[in-house]
Amino acid sequence: MRIGETHYRTIWMEDDPGVVKVIDQRLLPFKFALLELRSWKDAFEAIAQMGVRGAPLIGACAAFGLYLAAYQSKKDKWCEEVQEAGAMLISARPTAVNLKYAVDLLMEKVECAGSRESMIKELFHLAHRFAEDEVIRSMRIGEHGVSLIRDIYERKQSPVNILTHCNAGWLACVDYGTATAPIYLAHEQGIPLHVWVDETRPRNQGARLTAYELGEHGVNHTVVVDNAGGHLMQQGKVDLVIVGSDRTTRKGDVANKIGTYLKALAAKDNGIPFYVALPTTSIDLLLAKGGEIEIENREDNEVSHMEGWDEEKQKSASIRISPEGSKVVNPGFDVTPARLVSGLITEKGICDATEEGIESLFGK
Amino acid sequence: MRIGETHYRTIWMEDDPGVVKVIDQRLLPFKFALLELRSWKDAFEAIAQMGVRGAPLIGACAAFGLYLAAYQSKKDKWCEEVQEAGAMLISARPTAVNLKYAVDLLMEKVECAGSRESMIKELFHLAHRFAEDEVIRSMRIGEHGVSLIRDIYERKQSPVNILTHCNAGWLACVDYGTATAPIYLAHEQGIPLHVWVDETRPRNQGARLTAYELGEHGVNHTVVVDNAGGHLMQQGKVDLVIVGSDRTTRKGDVANKIGTYLKALAAKDNGIPFYVALPTTSIDLLLAKGGEIEIENREDNEVSHMEGWDEEKQKSASIRISPEGSKVVNPGFDVTPARLVSGLITEKGICDATEEGIESLFGK
Repeated sequence: MRIGETHYRTIWMEDDPGVVKVIDQRLLPFKFALLELRSWKDAFEAIAQMGVRGAPLIGACAAFGLYLAAYQSKKDKWCEEVQEAGAMLISARPTAVNLKYAVDLLMEKVECAGSRESMIKELFHLAHRFAEDEVIRSMRIGEHGVSLIRDIYERKQSPVNILTHCNAGWLACVDYGTATAPIYLAHEQGIPLHVWVDETRPRNQGARLTAYELGEHGVNHTVVVDNAGGHLMQQGKVDLVIVGSDRTTRKGDVANKIGTYLKALAAKDNGIPFYVALPTTSIDLLLAKGGEIEIENREDNEVSHMEGWDEEKQKSASIRISPEGSKVVNPGFDVTPARLVSGLITEKGICDATEEGIESLFGK
Repeated sequence: MRIGETHYRTIWMEDDPGVVKVIDQRLLPFKFALLELRSWKDAFEAIAQMGVRGAPLIGACAAFGLYLAAYQSKKDKWCEEVQEAGAMLISARPTAVNLKYAVDLLMEKVECAGSRESMIKELFHLAHRFAEDEVIRSMRIGEHGVSLIRDIYERKQSPVNILTHCNAGWLACVDYGTATAPIYLAHEQGIPLHVWVDETRPRNQGARLTAYELGEHGVNHTVVVDNAGGHLMQQGKVDLVIVGSDRTTRKGDVANKIGTYLKALAAKDNGIPFYVALPTTSIDLLLAKGGEIEIENREDNEVSHMEGWDEEKQKSASIRISPEGSKVVNPGFDVTPARLVSGLITEKGICDATEEGIESLFGK
């Protein structure tokens, strides 16, 4: 997608075979900077320090990290070094399943009996392939989802108002995003639209990342506090809700960023379609009910403090926003029951948020 | 209520008949300071600059402002000066109906034919009476509402978890508050309880004021982001919701701080009682449906920026939290339909959020 006049992905390589580039997302939207990864340790740091974030992008970054491990390895110990890198990269963010998925996928192909040179080539190819597959999945989600937006536009003949929560955008992926993919495709196709962006406390990924990426790509949008969405729906100002998902059960219950459930309730109460965009890889076929999903409590200081930009000093700053003596809790996700979900938009098509709907995607 | 070891109201007078004291709420919870009002202009500034806020407190502050106008007036022009003060005080915050209510109530008693001295005494008495009536209304709300908390405690025999939104606490009133009055009374009566405090973006009155006043008074509480309440309810961690109201229609639709509607939806979805605590003076008998209530859009910078406390420099600070290029909108209130409200807790008793329920309060 575009940042200013330039097209970017979140991770890529240029001419130098020893350098992987990523967008450093920590200072967005206030400062745009790149990180150059020259070793698997750089990739590890980028993931662990949240220079890159978003499950799909983390997976891709680990894949390129494995390639760098091989490229930088000593001639006689390359296989141990790649294996060590794989074990470490998996541990860079404890709860990100995509990390393990990506590393396992590539490590299966590592043949210690083979040559270092062929393994470097293989991992180079596999890392690019991993990123490319990710982009294609996002594009397919966009192609399926855009029909929902087009249908609404054809009916109302005025800009389609879409509400989204958190950042399930291209910055969390390699390109296009999941919840944003239908939006970007609709924008490319000239369908007039406007996006309501929930700021998404506590980490404000909506205000910081979704607003930034939509704005840079030229998509009309407005930031609102998380409290405002229900009111906007009551006022007829929302035509469609699209959010992402961290994990979806085989019966269609959706775990996503905390606060998603409240928007699903409001959409239901106002007769507004509520869709979840996700790659089928995030559907957990072993889980039936959302209640089985364990919800992690994140760090207190995400609630008691707020990070942002000191406009005077032009640098990032953190301020306290609740009393020192007050406890906080910070659940990271909530579960939206399938009954509130109008449908799932996946790379394989749109389906009902039911066991039958999900089975139909897998051709059962 | 207590701050540290001392009992306070939000507005009071001590020995000096020329000084009215108020708590300066702008730096709370980070810094406790008092303002001394020595003229109606000081009272005007305190209201306009939000040193005091909350509809009931603003009304009381205007009432004391009128007294100060008389006390400071010139002998021969006291009546014009009091009338000028009244007209100006009404304009200190354009949308606060209590302001006009308080000023009109006192101005009715101003007899230009009478003596300056008797009018000073009369306004002194009326301002104190106004504040005292406000405290009594809050206490009555508490006395009626505490039965709801006691019933839950008797059933579950473990601490009652109450969720509240924004600040309908004693800092918005003169003492006790509205939504917090049943909580303070239950606490005084030794009923074990715990309060979930929504931070309440954009102005964070929950994190800043409700958490502060509960903490200082010794009430067990936890601050959460506005997104978390639905999840807490799904997890069985909320027994009761109590919020305040800015305006309630005669059919029981409730206008309150933006985001209230989302919590009401979640309470309904999880079978949790959702009560609104309010003085009957805030019931607008002329309005039938909540849709008729005009919702003001507040300033953009409340959304694009966040105010808090620079812990290093020990002073308040504001940081930018959304991109400069992104539009924002900032609706201040939303309307919770009566069908989602379990009941209204008023100084006259608890009633259904229906036309019949509300009529029963007024003895029709």
